[in-house]
Amino acid sequence: MPDARIRDSFARQSLMATFGAEITDIGPGRVEISAPILPLAHQQHGVGHAGLTFALADSAAGYAALTLMPEGREVMTAEAKINLLAPARGERLIARGEVAKAGRRLTVTRAEVFALDQGRETCIALLQATMIPVDPV
Amino acid sequence: MPDARIRDSFARQSLMATFGAEITDIGPGRVEISAPILPLAHQQHGVGHAGLTFALADSAAGYAALTLMPEGREVMTAEAKINLLAPARGERLIARGEVAKAGRRLTVTRAEVFALDQGRETCIALLQATMIPVDPV
Amino acid sequence: MPDARIRDSFARQSLMATFGAEITDIGPGRVEISAPILPLAHQQHGVGHAGLTFALADSAAGYAALTLMPEGREVMTAEAKINLLAPARGERLIARGEVAKAGRRLTVTRAEVFALDQGRETCIALLQATMIPVDPV
Amino acid sequence: MPDARIRDSFARQSLMATFGAEITDIGPGRVEISAPILPLAHQQHGVGHAGLTFALADSAAGYAALTLMPEGREVMTAEAKINLLAPARGERLIARGEVAKAGRRLTVTRAEVFALDQGRETCIALLQATMIPVDPV
Repeated sequence: MPDARIRDSFARQSLMATFGAEITDIGPGRVEISAPILPLAHQQHGVGHAGLTFALADSAAGYAALTLMPEGREVMTAEAKINLLAPARGERLIARGEVAKAGRRLTVTRAEVFALDQGRETCIALLQATMIPVDPV
Repeated sequence: MPDARIRDSFARQSLMATFGAEITDIGPGRVEISAPILPLAHQQHGVGHAGLTFALADSAAGYAALTLMPEGREVMTAEAKINLLAPARGERLIARGEVAKAGRRLTVTRAEVFALDQGRETCIALLQATMIPVDPV
Repeated sequence: MPDARIRDSFARQSLMATFGAEITDIGPGRVEISAPILPLAHQQHGVGHAGLTFALADSAAGYAALTLMPEGREVMTAEAKINLLAPARGERLIARGEVAKAGRRLTVTRAEVFALDQGRETCIALLQATMIPVDPV
Repeated sequence: MPDARIRDSFARQSLMATFGAEITDIGPGRVEISAPILPLAHQQHGVGHAGLTFALADSAAGYAALTLMPEGREVMTAEAKINLLAPARGERLIARGEVAKAGRRLTVTRAEVFALDQGRETCIALLQATMIPVDPV
């Protein structure tokens, strides 16, 4: 089962558990992560903090990169850029990460984050990030 | 006391409380935020998640921008870019945000994040971000 | 003819003329710019300089934003982030810009740049940028 | 003379010659590049194009990275992010690049670009970029 190492690694990310996040889809070069907007993750206006949005986008992008790497590799974020398009308002956030270019030394990824508010999905963030393979520790 | 609105706003960011973060310095155009690397904020290798590092850097940069805005304004992150230089390993993270250019419509900020590991500070991240003033909700 | 102001503005960008660039497609929220990789725009390895790739991507993204703005506005780049995926090798570069989110105060855009090398298109760059409307000077 | 390979490489960047750019300072981990704002490099409002500003910042940052690499290596830009703070107005641009973190696999750099207008320097851009060593071609 090729998804196992993604799910195993994700399960070790305590921040994802803190946020109540779960992997809701995995495919070659793409991962979707979904999380409620918990009261513990707000900014000062009572909506989701940019740190929550970023964490989900970054994890979705990073695990999307990992799906295309050989067994036994790990991945770390070298850099990421996020544009926040709208407040993280609603019940849930859904982050969809995908690989734009899988290189030997670097993998370039993108992610979009959607807020689900009363059944309606709004794109609230775009992320573009560089992932680098690392040896497991 | 000019710092009061920064501290009041910060106190309403539940994510900062979740991370155990506190403001450790404020000046005109600069804010320092410090937080322990709590077990609830780890990535899969047992060090701080990029989402933690980003959240602290983003908040430090955003509040640095707010220090230079007229009373009664709020600030939101329009976009941010972070380079992760080293793992978030150690007891504490210290994020130092400052204003690079305070404009009428946009404020450009920078932040550096340091990990404090056994008394030694290592720079682990550089952030460059655009803040936009908003009316309070 | 709604394209006229885009083409007029583009015609005043001397750097685009220097690069031999032309607009090859315009639609609502999207602009395509194409240019040869001229010998005057190389980096040290004899392929197109990152500055060429960036300039085309930035212009395509900026004009894509302008297509959705009211008559009489102009647009400037507030910030841009580019990932370079492969060398700018071949005869031509094609930059396709599009609007991701047209806001009242900021427009978020994306662009992809392709190199055309012996009839084959390779994606060489991804750009994500924030455009800000300005009054004409 | 340790600067020789930087100057040799720079001399092979035809885009820098097109822009009339020259290296005006080199030190370990830093390079300064200066160029007039030539009429051939304007945007639509008659000031320097963002592509000019980016090209100078990117070259200054890339060569700053190269100063710290072993003899015989070359460097390429993996990604770069630029915030444009003010129009590129005046006689000259001065781009100052420096290394923020020289890693084994990636070098993180920063650059600032100043416009010299009637004897007064204004910071017009901040760049943060990741450089990757490559074997010479």
